[in-house]
Amino acid sequence: MSSNSSQNSLFLGIDLGGTNVKAGVVDASGRAHSHVSVETQAELGPGTGLANIEKAGRLALEEAGISSDALRAVGLGSPGTMDLETGYLLDPPNLPGWTNFPIRDLLAARLGLPTVLQNDANAAAFGEYWVGAGAGDRVRSMVMFTLGTGVGGGVIEHGRIIQGRHSAGSECGHVIIDYHDTARMCPCGHRGHLEAYASATSLVKRAVEGLASGELSALSKLQESGNLSARAIAEAARAGDPFASRLMEETAFYLAVGAVSVMNVIDPDMILFGGGMIAAGTPFLDRIRFHVKRLAFPVPGEKCRVEFASLGNDAGFIGAAGWAKSVFDALDRGETIARYSMP
Amino acid sequence: MSSNSSQNSLFLGIDLGGTNVKAGVVDASGRAHSHVSVETQAELGPGTGLANIEKAGRLALEEAGISSDALRAVGLGSPGTMDLETGYLLDPPNLPGWTNFPIRDLLAARLGLPTVLQNDANAAAFGEYWVGAGAGDRVRSMVMFTLGTGVGGGVIEHGRIIQGRHSAGSECGHVIIDYHDTARMCPCGHRGHLEAYASATSLVKRAVEGLASGELSALSKLQESGNLSARAIAEAARAGDPFASRLMEETAFYLAVGAVSVMNVIDPDMILFGGGMIAAGTPFLDRIRFHVKRLAFPVPGEKCRVEFASLGNDAGFIGAAGWAKSVFDALDRGETIARYSMP
Repeated sequence: MSSNSSQNSLFLGIDLGGTNVKAGVVDASGRAHSHVSVETQAELGPGTGLANIEKAGRLALEEAGISSDALRAVGLGSPGTMDLETGYLLDPPNLPGWTNFPIRDLLAARLGLPTVLQNDANAAAFGEYWVGAGAGDRVRSMVMFTLGTGVGGGVIEHGRIIQGRHSAGSECGHVIIDYHDTARMCPCGHRGHLEAYASATSLVKRAVEGLASGELSALSKLQESGNLSARAIAEAARAGDPFASRLMEETAFYLAVGAVSVMNVIDPDMILFGGGMIAAGTPFLDRIRFHVKRLAFPVPGEKCRVEFASLGNDAGFIGAAGWAKSVFDALDRGETIARYSMP
Repeated sequence: MSSNSSQNSLFLGIDLGGTNVKAGVVDASGRAHSHVSVETQAELGPGTGLANIEKAGRLALEEAGISSDALRAVGLGSPGTMDLETGYLLDPPNLPGWTNFPIRDLLAARLGLPTVLQNDANAAAFGEYWVGAGAGDRVRSMVMFTLGTGVGGGVIEHGRIIQGRHSAGSECGHVIIDYHDTARMCPCGHRGHLEAYASATSLVKRAVEGLASGELSALSKLQESGNLSARAIAEAARAGDPFASRLMEETAFYLAVGAVSVMNVIDPDMILFGGGMIAAGTPFLDRIRFHVKRLAFPVPGEKCRVEFASLGNDAGFIGAAGWAKSVFDALDRGETIARYSMP
């Protein structure tokens, strides 16, 4: 083949979300040469959505001033559920109706480029591992929790994403932190998962419960005005509101419980927290660190770094590009670490 | 070097325990050509212990009718804590006084062979993965729980043991299944760990608690005669004793909770249970399977195989040999997957 040869060192990273598609051209050092966002219009179905994904990709090429011939491959991060062997979306809750959709083959055909698919939270973790908070020689393994509507997870071990045999690996938001049948219900339908305690959604839910049971707090007014959000709770905590402070402290504790559970399996160099909730800042991070140290085994508790992610919303498309690079670099070494689609 | 060349395809596997050292010569297909056991005499200190480890190794060579020149390397499985980078035992609870002991260097020197060190539960898991219950093309990733005095763990992902950055990986007995401060205390000093609920020790403890609170059961007599053991509880359950049955059912449930937590991180092909408690047999396994299926995500819950280990007490030395083989096979490919000591 004359194009997309192994000499090419540019990758197109795409981060598919329920609302927007982000895309950018990323070079072998992890630098983004462009950065675009278009609406997914997920509700119009996978056909329109796919056209918008292609559009985002072509805009990213245009903004970077290159043609697709200069690219080695495409990396696509998508919300699950998915089958990473076949490249199908199965039944993604965030993309209703995109059921049994062969997104990887179709995108490869549309863009005329080899395409790798990955879970979005895994892609974001890989981005942070590659050129974000985990960049540097010392970090070889990393566990990332993405704190938003849910709690996403991504685990990198020996430079590889743990994607699992059934595309359900790295779901660290779904470790069980309370086995009792009184435990909180997770949106996934099972009880006691970390996500049911420590997502932005569950933080707000716990606030609402507390206010209903008579907690006195500045959050009451926010609730009345319809402005009770995770961010508002974090701000109230910083401003000294005792109830909001307790909610944030509990959240830090729950996250530490989940993090230590995963640490005791992976024992990584680094635990990373990303997503909207890290706007709560260093005091929140310090409380997570406090509980991790207290709950972990002594050596990992001492040595494992606990940090916030650093790439923000760019982690997804950069990580998707980086994972595509890893897959094709491995292929050059004669090693298959993940499936991909050819155009 | 004229000896121990990469042409050699025999390995010496050694499984160091608090009571006995097991050893055997293992070929490249995982077949044991000898199988010996000598007393560790751990209480006489690491010097005597090391002599006994060497003795076990030399007896294994003798029994296999080969000289050490025919060996490629030695694999040693040991209880932790340890530092797998430097090959030191740090402060192993099961080998009191063997503190900061450079066991890997010393054994390599004594046997005149390159030596790889691994955690004993990880080695056992690797043995099962290689030639035990996990053998076969379909199994690429595996999580094993070893149910004994404690709950040991071993995770194999992409053919590698997850040993962790601080030699504390794969400690699946220490996932936190109950975050409350009322949770059971684990022998490791932290609350709510799987081991505190599902080890043979904790099964007996829960039986004692129940009997003290007035449960009527055939186990009372066993307790009076000092014969209350995990095995006796399993037997009473099989004989229809309601309280013993409930204890076994709870144990199966706890194990499933821990297994599903780890599944949601690793998403392996197979979950394996080994150790003395699997003497409880198929009814026990079926209850674990029932709860795993109920608690897991649909696809992994359907597809992940849940089985008992098949190598029994041989898993340790066979797995230690197999891991040494993996390390040196990787080295032949120019890849370093674990440190080792040269004689």
